[in-house]
Amino acid sequence: MLILTMKYAVGLWLFGQLSDRFLVYHPPKNLEEKIEGASKIKGINGIEVMYPTEFKYDEIDYFKSLIKDYGLEVAAIIVDLFGQSKWFRGSLTSKDERIRREAIQTCKEAMDVAKELGCRIVNIWPGQDGYDYPLQADYSKLWDLFTDAIREIATHDRAVKVALEYKLKEPRTRILISSVGKALLLVNDVNMDNVGITLDIGHALQALENPAESLVLIYKRGKLFHVHANDNYRDWDHDLITCTVNLWDYVECFFWLKRLGYDGWISIDIYPYREDVRGACEESIAFMRQIEQIVDKVGIRKFEECIEDGDPIKISKLLREILGT
Amino acid sequence: MLILTMKYAVGLWLFGQLSDRFLVYHPPKNLEEKIEGASKIKGINGIEVMYPTEFKYDEIDYFKSLIKDYGLEVAAIIVDLFGQSKWFRGSLTSKDERIRREAIQTCKEAMDVAKELGCRIVNIWPGQDGYDYPLQADYSKLWDLFTDAIREIATHDRAVKVALEYKLKEPRTRILISSVGKALLLVNDVNMDNVGITLDIGHALQALENPAESLVLIYKRGKLFHVHANDNYRDWDHDLITCTVNLWDYVECFFWLKRLGYDGWISIDIYPYREDVRGACEESIAFMRQIEQIVDKVGIRKFEECIEDGDPIKISKLLREILGT
Amino acid sequence: MLILTMKYAVGLWLFGQLSDRFLVYHPPKNLEEKIEGASKIKGINGIEVMYPTEFKYDEIDYFKSLIKDYGLEVAAIIVDLFGQSKWFRGSLTSKDERIRREAIQTCKEAMDVAKELGCRIVNIWPGQDGYDYPLQADYSKLWDLFTDAIREIATHDRAVKVALEYKLKEPRTRILISSVGKALLLVNDVNMDNVGITLDIGHALQALENPAESLVLIYKRGKLFHVHANDNYRDWDHDLITCTVNLWDYVECFFWLKRLGYDGWISIDIYPYREDVRGACEESIAFMRQIEQIVDKVGIRKFEECIEDGDPIKISKLLREILGT
Amino acid sequence: MLILTMKYAVGLWLFGQLSDRFLVYHPPKNLEEKIEGASKIKGINGIEVMYPTEFKYDEIDYFKSLIKDYGLEVAAIIVDLFGQSKWFRGSLTSKDERIRREAIQTCKEAMDVAKELGCRIVNIWPGQDGYDYPLQADYSKLWDLFTDAIREIATHDRAVKVALEYKLKEPRTRILISSVGKALLLVNDVNMDNVGITLDIGHALQALENPAESLVLIYKRGKLFHVHANDNYRDWDHDLITCTVNLWDYVECFFWLKRLGYDGWISIDIYPYREDVRGACEESIAFMRQIEQIVDKVGIRKFEECIEDGDPIKISKLLREILGT
Repeated sequence: MLILTMKYAVGLWLFGQLSDRFLVYHPPKNLEEKIEGASKIKGINGIEVMYPTEFKYDEIDYFKSLIKDYGLEVAAIIVDLFGQSKWFRGSLTSKDERIRREAIQTCKEAMDVAKELGCRIVNIWPGQDGYDYPLQADYSKLWDLFTDAIREIATHDRAVKVALEYKLKEPRTRILISSVGKALLLVNDVNMDNVGITLDIGHALQALENPAESLVLIYKRGKLFHVHANDNYRDWDHDLITCTVNLWDYVECFFWLKRLGYDGWISIDIYPYREDVRGACEESIAFMRQIEQIVDKVGIRKFEECIEDGDPIKISKLLREILGT
Repeated sequence: MLILTMKYAVGLWLFGQLSDRFLVYHPPKNLEEKIEGASKIKGINGIEVMYPTEFKYDEIDYFKSLIKDYGLEVAAIIVDLFGQSKWFRGSLTSKDERIRREAIQTCKEAMDVAKELGCRIVNIWPGQDGYDYPLQADYSKLWDLFTDAIREIATHDRAVKVALEYKLKEPRTRILISSVGKALLLVNDVNMDNVGITLDIGHALQALENPAESLVLIYKRGKLFHVHANDNYRDWDHDLITCTVNLWDYVECFFWLKRLGYDGWISIDIYPYREDVRGACEESIAFMRQIEQIVDKVGIRKFEECIEDGDPIKISKLLREILGT
Repeated sequence: MLILTMKYAVGLWLFGQLSDRFLVYHPPKNLEEKIEGASKIKGINGIEVMYPTEFKYDEIDYFKSLIKDYGLEVAAIIVDLFGQSKWFRGSLTSKDERIRREAIQTCKEAMDVAKELGCRIVNIWPGQDGYDYPLQADYSKLWDLFTDAIREIATHDRAVKVALEYKLKEPRTRILISSVGKALLLVNDVNMDNVGITLDIGHALQALENPAESLVLIYKRGKLFHVHANDNYRDWDHDLITCTVNLWDYVECFFWLKRLGYDGWISIDIYPYREDVRGACEESIAFMRQIEQIVDKVGIRKFEECIEDGDPIKISKLLREILGT
Repeated sequence: MLILTMKYAVGLWLFGQLSDRFLVYHPPKNLEEKIEGASKIKGINGIEVMYPTEFKYDEIDYFKSLIKDYGLEVAAIIVDLFGQSKWFRGSLTSKDERIRREAIQTCKEAMDVAKELGCRIVNIWPGQDGYDYPLQADYSKLWDLFTDAIREIATHDRAVKVALEYKLKEPRTRILISSVGKALLLVNDVNMDNVGITLDIGHALQALENPAESLVLIYKRGKLFHVHANDNYRDWDHDLITCTVNLWDYVECFFWLKRLGYDGWISIDIYPYREDVRGACEESIAFMRQIEQIVDKVGIRKFEECIEDGDPIKISKLLREILGT
């Protein structure tokens, strides 16, 4: 029997300075220090890189040499459409057409960078594209601007996968691409093979979704391009160590990832403000690896039978078997 | 200048006995008593009828004579796929194929009834179609069963509009068609002219949506078939008197309904457990009529300018102007 | 080493008909049938009884003989202040003084019944005491009426413990005693030895509390009189089988229950609408028993060390150790 | 008839740089620039100052001269127990006793500063005092450490009012003093005349409270020392312009503030990240002033009658009268 094991990556931004609206945490680091930090994480095979925040286009050779030196693969490029002042009122849907073009151009560059780095995924999280107040937005225009932007970006290079990451809120009180349904609808509208979705498990929880259902609905359409892992209390994107709050959601997600044969990456996207970053990342991976082992030990068939029955009493028995004593 | 005014209906079920999980409220009523109750509501033009709960197929002539006597139009038929014991584990997605066929058949019958009554809308709210626990459902199968059922139903008579009403939860802890995005995706998948959506404003609030955004995204695709009106605290489908909690959401919704030229019905779907039912319905309508007048008085153009600017300070000024002193 | 094991009870109402606002589930049962149903649950030592819904004052001898026959102890009496039509706008805070007196009288009777049955706990859950709309209540008067009522009730017999059960909402959209803080404040105001709190773990989750924190703060004041167990998605009182959603919360609660030496009852208060009631109860108990074993195996000291460190990485390691593979 | 009008202040921190976890907004400003910014806000009488972030103890004379020059009163001093790196794992409940002493000392200094500035209120918002994960805290110890700290602080100078500001979450995923009930309980435990509460209306909404109820319960005990004003979607402390989301909550709060005769300050605590700061503050005040006028015009008695009846239909009529056309 072949047992599929997942590939884990870690966001490079975790190894620099982190902020919330009251404090900055951890000292700032330069690119090599961050890469060195990431390279020490047990259990990872790759990194997710924020472009162009972590390195500029003309630093690509330096970056390549660094990741070669530290033996890291690039799992995904996430385009920074949220952390630069110019995007503060929107990027791909900015009312300022010059800003909007710049956002589109940055995404295209990120695709070139991805290709150059042998990375298949460019992750687009439009955190600033939305609105905050009632009567602030023309929702129809926002949708069209966003759809057109994604289509143009994806057309730039059909060999690079554009993975759209949805989120309910933060930094905007309302983000346009807020739920699995709207993300899939957008992907349908764009209708290109290389446009799909990043499922951030914490974002699904924040949007009051069952992450496993979202995962299956995305996968069913061939659109599960990328996964972000972290945990929260179903109320906000707290980005906690995975599985420390919602264990069963993770068990169910990993059953489906294995059953469906997901062969993409799982990126650690936690925010260990007050913790040792390395330890928090390693725990996240160790927890998911442990769940992988549990799924393998229980066996896909047993989960399938449980789902076929749909009987909560059998579900509870299975969960208790997993928990052990 | 032509000023559009909305058509209001009221759910017939409001005039009988209402329940929650602890109590029953109001005395039970027979069909004529309910119709008489509805007919007394100032400001309504029609009723929404639950089929076959409120009358059976062979009682259609009696029902027709009653609504003729009381001078009421049928705004929509809502198929009872949630309030009969047989649907307790699902209707259109039931694992029991016999039950599922019965659910589909009931929807088709409801379409025949609608046609016979001169009503264009059959509302399908699949409240029992979902699940409660992790590892309880094959989400992909649920989606396919649901899509196929809607397609079969809609094919039964392309002249009747099938309006799908989404809701996040209750009675199931997780309903399959839970959000505006998933509802539109499903409608896309079915891809038939006569399949669209019922926007329940309270359900949009419960799903943490901005109801006006949901409205616009549905309308944009020509799929806003029907509207349900009620209010809540963005936490649950409390079905309170409209506008008593979220005034600005209602103002924004009515701006868009008028600007887009919505010519369908707005059905009062409140649950006045502890109140005088007639008074609660009349207040709901009076509140929405008042908001209509406000939108007309302010003028579409002024709202549009506010939205074009997208400046919260101008928004606040407009809201204060609406509020007056 | 002495290992404390918990005493489990089950709500007698689970063995009759259950409702939500759309459906009734399970056939109705008479008193003996319900008691028989409860008596079959593996792992319970007692029942919680709703008075006077399940039997009237003059049926007490019959009830005593039944529980004797079925070998059951009465863990708690819950006063029905929510499921009779007369309470629909409030019980202990009713504006109708006649209704309010009746509610107080019912509580006193329940205390007499409790004493007669050898039961120490009368549980008061004021689900109808609150309000639904803005500008509907004089919050200060509500507080005073409630405080006075509890004081009068508790004075009736200082040998019976009056346990106040808080809940955020449902059936009212806002219940007066909504959170652990307000419940403890009320208990402080009443200031009687026999007035304390029922912690319903699901209610704590619904109120966005960490149940373990609420438990500790109540226990610290000597006020943890009773515990109700069930689970949900932190959004509503879904009353699911315990531990099927929030495993770690249950682990943390049981660590504290054992560490603090709680010697009261844990009552199963789930609502198995679509499930086999017996199976759902037995799973709830089996899950909690299993967690008891885990806590014993890990050892109180190890949990304490984890808490003393407060390091999320150590927490994650401990959780992974508990999960095993 | 004497009509009470409220005193408005504005947080001085609004006039400098604001951050979220992705971006910084607005240019940094020095003390005089901030004070100048605040002084331009139409409708304010005072400022709330963050100490020692905005000026140090030895800069007090300079600060005094500045506010004299700009004609501003100090409404409240908020102690910075959240925005300095040393507090990142707690301030008044820090496990590091040295840090905890420093936090207490800072509060005492803030009291001295307040006195020196003729300000009666020191606001303590312990945003870092809580925890993030299950099994991370000894809740009983946290409570005791916090209570003891507040008692020691309040004892430092009984002529200065110590106002405790509760909040559910952020920056910690769980803050210790999270709800109105816990805040009042803490105040009860400390039991000193000069210890009371700051009601942040947005925090009450975030905690799923009805702000007017929280206000009344605090006032009833003579503990409403201070008020912060801002708005959100009942889901997070978004700090939006007041009344732009929850109009009726503000109407109800201002009815009670006037009826009860609140003579303290109302501080604007919004976060206008993407807006003109001055405009956003002025709109917040203009909106509240407008609601004051409405309450005066409707008249206290009419609100009282509405509350005495408690009839949602009358409530709706009153709200519609307020809205006008």
